[in-house]
Amino acid sequence: MKRTKKERQSQLLETIEETPFVTDEELAEKFNVSIQTIRLDRMELSIPELRERIKLVAKKQFNKVKALDPEEVIGEVVELNLDQDAISILDIGPEHVFSRTGIARGHHLFAQANSLAVAVINDDMALTAKSEITFKRQVRKGERVLAKAKVTRAEGDFMIVQVDSFVKRERVFHGIFTMYRSRL
Amino acid sequence: MKRTKKERQSQLLETIEETPFVTDEELAEKFNVSIQTIRLDRMELSIPELRERIKLVAKKQFNKVKALDPEEVIGEVVELNLDQDAISILDIGPEHVFSRTGIARGHHLFAQANSLAVAVINDDMALTAKSEITFKRQVRKGERVLAKAKVTRAEGDFMIVQVDSFVKRERVFHGIFTMYRSRL
Repeated sequence: MKRTKKERQSQLLETIEETPFVTDEELAEKFNVSIQTIRLDRMELSIPELRERIKLVAKKQFNKVKALDPEEVIGEVVELNLDQDAISILDIGPEHVFSRTGIARGHHLFAQANSLAVAVINDDMALTAKSEITFKRQVRKGERVLAKAKVTRAEGDFMIVQVDSFVKRERVFHGIFTMYRSRL
Repeated sequence: MKRTKKERQSQLLETIEETPFVTDEELAEKFNVSIQTIRLDRMELSIPELRERIKLVAKKQFNKVKALDPEEVIGEVVELNLDQDAISILDIGPEHVFSRTGIARGHHLFAQANSLAVAVINDDMALTAKSEITFKRQVRKGERVLAKAKVTRAEGDFMIVQVDSFVKRERVFHGIFTMYRSRL
C-alpha cells in the first residue's frame, strides 16, 4: 500500500485541515514515513509548523474573549464559542513541573482549565465560585495539554462549565466549574 | 482605661508572641493608638515588622518540607507539622489579580492551598489526585491570605488534606485535597 509522494501530500493537507493540531510526529506515524519527510512535505506545501498553526488560530480567537483580558488566559485559546465551548493548548515546560520529578504541578492544569472556563463566559465578569476536579494521570514536561471547556448549564447568575483536558487522546484532567457571571 | 506606655508595650509584646502574624494596623486598633505609635513601640522593643517576622518564621520551617522543594511552595510556610498541619501566608500582589477588577485569580488561591497540601505530606513525593474547592468570597490586591492545612485522614497511599484560607478572620477559600503519596 505504498503511497506516491503526491498522494501522501494530498492526504497530508487534508489531515491537517481536519485536525489542525496534529503533530509532525503523529503525521509521520500515520503515513509511515520519517518526521523529516513530513517536514519536507510541509515545506513544499507551505504548511507552517504546528507551533505557528496554533498561533495563527489563537490570534483569530483572541478578540472574542470577554470576561477577562485575552492575555490573562493560561494557554492559547484555539477555539471559542461564547457561552458554548472553547479549546486551549498549553505546552508543559520546565516552569510547570516539580523540579524533582518532572511532573506537571496541579495548579497549572487547574489554571489552564479555570481560565478557559472564565474565557468561555459571554459576560464582562466571571468568577469561579466552586469547582470539583480530578487529576486522571500525571502530565510530564514536553507534553501538550489540550483543554476542552463546555458550558453545560446556566442557572441564573451561575453557569456550569465542564473542562476535560487531554494529552493526545488520553484524558488527564476533569473539572466541573461553577462560575458566577455579571455585567460590569 | 488608658494604659501607660509601659503597660501597652508589655501587652504588645505578649500579643505579638501569641499571634505573630498580627499587623500593625490590627495592633493599633486593639490598643486604640495610631499605627505610628505601634511602629515606635516595636522599634523600642526591637520587634521587627510583620514582613520580617514572617520571613524569620518561614526560614525555620523551610527545611522541614519533604515532598517538594521548599522554594516550590506558593506562599511562605510559617508553620509545618508533617502529616498533621501547616500554615502559609500569601500576599496578593498585582501579579495575582485580574487587571480589570483587581480580584485575585482563583488559580493563585488554589496554588497556595494545593502546594501547602503537598508540603504537609511526610513522604518523598505527593501528587494531587482530586480536589473539591469553594471560593467563599473575592480576595483583592493588597490582602494577605493565611492558608491552614490539616491532614484529616490517611487511607493507604492516599491522604485527605483540608485547607481553609482566611483574610483576617474571614474564610475566603475551602478545599478538600486527596493526595497520593509515595517514597521515591
